[in-house]
Amino acid sequence: MSVHSDQSPTGLATPTGPTVTVLGLGPMGRALAGAFLDAGVRTTVWNRTPGRDADLTARGALPAASPEEAVAASDLTVVCVVNYDASDAVLRQDAVTTALKGRTAVNLSADTPERARDTAAWADRHGIRYLDGAIMTPAPTIGTADAVFLFSGPQDLYGEHQPVLAALGGSHTHLGEDPGRAAAYDIALLDIFWTAMGGYAHAVAVARAEGVTARELAPFAEGIAAILPPLFTEFAGDIDDGTYSGELNPITSAASTMAHIVHASEAHGIDAGLMRVIEGQARRVIAQGHGGDGFSRVVELLGRS
Amino acid sequence: MSVHSDQSPTGLATPTGPTVTVLGLGPMGRALAGAFLDAGVRTTVWNRTPGRDADLTARGALPAASPEEAVAASDLTVVCVVNYDASDAVLRQDAVTTALKGRTAVNLSADTPERARDTAAWADRHGIRYLDGAIMTPAPTIGTADAVFLFSGPQDLYGEHQPVLAALGGSHTHLGEDPGRAAAYDIALLDIFWTAMGGYAHAVAVARAEGVTARELAPFAEGIAAILPPLFTEFAGDIDDGTYSGELNPITSAASTMAHIVHASEAHGIDAGLMRVIEGQARRVIAQGHGGDGFSRVVELLGRS
Ligand SMILES: NC(=O)c1ccc[n+]([C@@H]2O[C@H](COP(=O)([O-])OP(=O)(O)OC[C@H]3O[C@@H](n4cnc5c(N)ncnc54)[C@H](OP(=O)(O)O)[C@@H]3O)[C@@H](O)[C@H]2O)c1
Ligand SMILES: NC(=O)c1ccc[n+]([C@@H]2O[C@H](COP(=O)([O-])OP(=O)(O)OC[C@H]3O[C@@H](n4cnc5c(N)ncnc54)[C@H](OP(=O)(O)O)[C@@H]3O)[C@@H](O)[C@H]2O)c1
Repeated sequence: MSVHSDQSPTGLATPTGPTVTVLGLGPMGRALAGAFLDAGVRTTVWNRTPGRDADLTARGALPAASPEEAVAASDLTVVCVVNYDASDAVLRQDAVTTALKGRTAVNLSADTPERARDTAAWADRHGIRYLDGAIMTPAPTIGTADAVFLFSGPQDLYGEHQPVLAALGGSHTHLGEDPGRAAAYDIALLDIFWTAMGGYAHAVAVARAEGVTARELAPFAEGIAAILPPLFTEFAGDIDDGTYSGELNPITSAASTMAHIVHASEAHGIDAGLMRVIEGQARRVIAQGHGGDGFSRVVELLGRS
Repeated sequence: MSVHSDQSPTGLATPTGPTVTVLGLGPMGRALAGAFLDAGVRTTVWNRTPGRDADLTARGALPAASPEEAVAASDLTVVCVVNYDASDAVLRQDAVTTALKGRTAVNLSADTPERARDTAAWADRHGIRYLDGAIMTPAPTIGTADAVFLFSGPQDLYGEHQPVLAALGGSHTHLGEDPGRAAAYDIALLDIFWTAMGGYAHAVAVARAEGVTARELAPFAEGIAAILPPLFTEFAGDIDDGTYSGELNPITSAASTMAHIVHASEAHGIDAGLMRVIEGQARRVIAQGHGGDGFSRVVELLGRS
């Protein structure tokens, strides 16, 4: 898509259309800058370590020599670095803070809700318009229909910049004015993601010890992933309603299976710390008299601890 | 589908068609017996605790007074109880072992590869034809196209009973003659499943502490589940080939995210034991000099420990 494609007679984009600065050119920052360029947005880029912008400048991005020069070049600055220690190191320098005054910063780096709220308060103190955000899909999805972006902060500010941010593709959801809300979803969703990846890594290690290759297991592993979405939604209803039905799969049965996984793993000398934690949670739910309930009851145990 | 539907003039199935016995009438055993009945297979049922067969006998299942009577009624016995301690308690009684001689038992209970191999050896010593198996989908999928069954053991025995087992619906895969192979896949796949469920339960607990309901999170959680299948397959190639590319998402970035999850969770008083284990694995991979690699490198760490 093309957000803006005014071209000067020389073929260079004129500065009259939307402009954006991208700070941070890791895999994700490069993907974001690339999507802006593809959409015809005049894009200025900067990265702490020089030399990461070669591909982007070849595609028309404008390199900046410093972060203050970078933010001064555009109405909107998108920050995408490893975390908020890194975004603080970039943004909370006098020259950068001064240059950002009256402009908008959107922080798409991942961190905690607490850090997002703290950054919004800092921006407010310095007259910087601020949106927080999170990216829920891998770098190759950026600019495609598969990308998923979450935002929080002032609704009108989101509305103002949405047309340019739409260049990043995919679905964009504004979750509310609390600047920490996007990070709250981000933390929860990355918890699901990295725990699932941790389980997969462990499963592959156990399978290999049993003489099954990762590629042999993969189609079945994909099948397991495919049964998760409807279960997540069923589980969500159980939790919000406090029903925790174990009629189709009681937590006693789950705990028995978990014990087999621990046993088979440790019998191969493979650490089973993850499954020991999960089995322990299930055993505590059973000991509390809820053995006939479903595994979803573990949420109450965690929330209470 | 109807495997066999010879009906006697009185409307009762005659004993000339395929016959099956189901031992164990938990949620899964009942689903299996129901699918056999739906397919017109003469089905005998037994459960340790009486009274679980009411719905099934109303649909035409034949109740047996003892497990030995049950196995004597059919050529093929399907066992589906909580684990192999339970299947041993049922099968390794003199009367049952004697009644099974020359017949086929298929054990669809879940347990370790070691227990499956031990049971195959026991069956062999007693002249019982034996297949091991595992069910990879929830009870409501049984009899539908979504069911997934794995089998291992003698190929010809599998071929002989496949026409009757096909009544259970879905996909059936024979993984080889080693009787432990279905259980090896089962353990690995349940490891993925229960770890993912553990991550989801934890994520919901954290989200709720942030004022986000399980239902609000659910559509995004489904989105996360949807990105897992292609990553699992990519990851499998990385592991089998030893490439572990972190070009699009280095393990240093993952570890930073994991630390945020631990921090946000514990700041709400919610145990983060699971993510502490996973972050610990990532930190060890980084300390070994592989910070530029992808998270998949954790498989080597686990396999080596
Ligand atoms: N990659 C993905 O698929 C993906 C998906 C969803 C969300 N995200 C999120 O997007 C953000 C960026 O991720 P990424 O994949 O691009 O890689 P990353 O490894 O998380 O971040 C690398 C970027 O952070 C910068 N950085 C680190 N410490 C810094 C500091 N103290 N000062 C200034 N810059 C610093 C790096 O600059 P140098 O080059 O100078 O080191 C580089 O630009 C992260 O929060 C990540 O969680 C990534
Ligand atoms: N439910 C699912 O969605 C699902 C999905 C895939 C695989 N599976 C596997 O299928 C198997 C059966 O699961 P399930 O869901 O039906 O429920 P379950 O709770 O795992 O097993 C209940 C069955 O085991 C029997 N049992 C337990 N201990 C026994 C013993 N010592 N002697 C004899 N019988 C004993 C119970 O008999 P009583 O009624 O007398 O207690 C009941 O028939 C398990 O291995 C499970 O992992 C289940």
